[in-house]
Amino acid sequence: MPAVIGLRCASCRRDYAHDGPVQDYCPECGELYGTLECVYDYSAVREAIQTHGFPDTSHHSISRYHTILPLHDIHNLPHLRIGMTPCYSSSRLAEIAGVRELFLKDDTLNPTGSYKDRASAVVVGRAVELGYPVVACASTGNAAASLAGCCASAGLKCVVFVPRDAPPAKLVQIAAYGAQLIAVEGNYDQAFDLATKACRKFSWFNRSAGLNPYLVEGKKTGAFELCEMLNFSVPEFVFTGVGDGSIITGLCKGFTELAKLGLIRSIPKVIGVQAEGACALKTAFDNFARTGNISIRRQAASTCADSISVGLPREGARAIRAVSETGGRFITVHDDEIRQALKHIAENEGILAEPAGAAGYAGVLRAVRTGIVTQTDRVAVFITGNGLKDISGVQESIDMEPLVIPPDIPALDRISAVKFQEKDNEKR
Amino acid sequence: MPAVIGLRCASCRRDYAHDGPVQDYCPECGELYGTLECVYDYSAVREAIQTHGFPDTSHHSISRYHTILPLHDIHNLPHLRIGMTPCYSSSRLAEIAGVRELFLKDDTLNPTGSYKDRASAVVVGRAVELGYPVVACASTGNAAASLAGCCASAGLKCVVFVPRDAPPAKLVQIAAYGAQLIAVEGNYDQAFDLATKACRKFSWFNRSAGLNPYLVEGKKTGAFELCEMLNFSVPEFVFTGVGDGSIITGLCKGFTELAKLGLIRSIPKVIGVQAEGACALKTAFDNFARTGNISIRRQAASTCADSISVGLPREGARAIRAVSETGGRFITVHDDEIRQALKHIAENEGILAEPAGAAGYAGVLRAVRTGIVTQTDRVAVFITGNGLKDISGVQESIDMEPLVIPPDIPALDRISAVKFQEKDNEKR
Repeated sequence: MPAVIGLRCASCRRDYAHDGPVQDYCPECGELYGTLECVYDYSAVREAIQTHGFPDTSHHSISRYHTILPLHDIHNLPHLRIGMTPCYSSSRLAEIAGVRELFLKDDTLNPTGSYKDRASAVVVGRAVELGYPVVACASTGNAAASLAGCCASAGLKCVVFVPRDAPPAKLVQIAAYGAQLIAVEGNYDQAFDLATKACRKFSWFNRSAGLNPYLVEGKKTGAFELCEMLNFSVPEFVFTGVGDGSIITGLCKGFTELAKLGLIRSIPKVIGVQAEGACALKTAFDNFARTGNISIRRQAASTCADSISVGLPREGARAIRAVSETGGRFITVHDDEIRQALKHIAENEGILAEPAGAAGYAGVLRAVRTGIVTQTDRVAVFITGNGLKDISGVQESIDMEPLVIPPDIPALDRISAVKFQEKDNEKR
Repeated sequence: MPAVIGLRCASCRRDYAHDGPVQDYCPECGELYGTLECVYDYSAVREAIQTHGFPDTSHHSISRYHTILPLHDIHNLPHLRIGMTPCYSSSRLAEIAGVRELFLKDDTLNPTGSYKDRASAVVVGRAVELGYPVVACASTGNAAASLAGCCASAGLKCVVFVPRDAPPAKLVQIAAYGAQLIAVEGNYDQAFDLATKACRKFSWFNRSAGLNPYLVEGKKTGAFELCEMLNFSVPEFVFTGVGDGSIITGLCKGFTELAKLGLIRSIPKVIGVQAEGACALKTAFDNFARTGNISIRRQAASTCADSISVGLPREGARAIRAVSETGGRFITVHDDEIRQALKHIAENEGILAEPAGAAGYAGVLRAVRTGIVTQTDRVAVFITGNGLKDISGVQESIDMEPLVIPPDIPALDRISAVKFQEKDNEKR
């Protein structure tokens, strides 16, 4: 039995039952502000950890953190290897950025290629426990692909609503997993509202951001893994790209819980990185810092990083509070900085991120330039999505001029004198 | 110091030095038959295993098998997490296929999305040790992307030759890692010959299939991992798609070495699966079984599975001997069977393979139908490449009809009466 004792509204702190019919949000505070969060009995968690360890190293996925996940039976998670993604120390990127040490948490290697798998897995596990045969969501692409993959693994039906212009790879991926794909003639926000109505009408379990208390429980596992892989010696700063705000909320919750349990001594400052063209949360955070009031307002959203192209952040209110409690903040970067970051990561580390997945590292460079981060700091960056999911986005980020030649040595000779010797000389 | 004592011609068994200037192949036997293989002093390996264990669990990539890899210093491997991909037991696919147990070794989750990373990593490690600043290869796409990623991680230059019609995702991936991409106006075989000439001319380390003795040393690690993850209780059969024959040669070598070291009691029969439209190795194997002679001849190559679309298999002679020694064989499947296999794996397990990556499972279905495999057998299948690398190939394999609707509930209502209730009823 898990140590979850209930669900609590992130704004008014009213309590709701964990094992009753699942509500999308606190009706008193409404959809945008009334996000529900899982509340644990931490003394029960401490006891469970004494028995099973933290992590429980007999498991090789996020299930190793079962002592603090909201599932009655951890085997209800899909049987894919969710999480346990590599964490690399990159001396080259640390040098480029000018920081003491830089860690890359490579979530491109989750089963469906994005960080979202962590959340989808826990939601699907809960759907199994609660007896829902269908899980649905709206998504810019990654969450839907992730939900579709996890549902396939668990044997559940899946319905996803995506904006019609989502990257083709994500649409193909969703369909391949056997999900019902609904392409909405509109943007993400319109797909979101339609998904919410459809879930109510058909009694589907809703995995959309901000409307499912179990999402963030999956997303917090990235923080657990980072700490585990750094032997619980946490860096000063953690960076991630931000769209709806649920990954960053999860990271903050993960660090906070580890501190509560005495497993880490300090909490890193968590920095949310948004694109300049899609920065509703940055605007709201700055307003909160000035006035103490949280007000989430729809803004235009336009960026090369489709996964964080969100006009109305659905987990926004909770994200602002969570980031603020870590001493972190939100910053923005230009699309050109995102493209440059993508190129740096690929060329220096052999990791191919999608644009949104590279936003976190773009944020590090910006934060160093603006003095938020200094050269004595250790920094960790989450790479949240695989570049293979958005090949045209990657292509726009790099100089791609293949030499096209006929298959003969004279043709090679004609170009080689210039081209290869140059390359050789650079290297030597 | 590794236990490698030399290189030996796979055909005439002549010995060559391991640490001298690297030769592409045995000059007596020529390019197609004179593949060189690494020879170990197995009593030295046994001693090393007594000290370090097998695997050495302090490592979380193929470096855990350092006692039987050809590197002086295992830290010369790229610092990516190569290998340690998940191994799933799939009861659904076992039931569909009609076998006792079916394991999926999911190599879609290697850093660049394919099995090839295992080989590229070891080759790049050797390039570092031998002082080569540039590594090159010809490839249908995956090997090049893999080499490019590993070179980026290790800080080496990379030049790759691909047929001009390689899938776009693979070309973008190669370019993103910073490799020099040369698109040859011709097929894979022509790109291969050009790469070989260029490597000689410019003294680049050649990673092309069949021409580098260290390739197979990386590829054998898939066999090590499979055995480790099954607690050294090996299945009766192992299936993989086959193009040039180097993955299957590596698998056979891995199993054979474990048996030599007393770590497994029997060797699985290794089955090579080729597409009907690109089956030069199947032809050569059947001829060998009849006559005892190995003769590799160029055939036309045309299949939806681009990664195994090989007319002249470069590691063919060695693959035929290796497979034969395990009691295995080669079989062919139709492209429609490959597409169907891809769909089964994605819908039932949430794993997205590229067509060539699904060929192994297509082979299992065929082998059961033809009586090679029976219902009491345990079978393992290597999924060798990620579907995100060839989205159009995936799309051709599935029924993809997204419902396109305007963002309103009446539109949803119009389709829902038919569509969702159907889906719901199927499920309940």
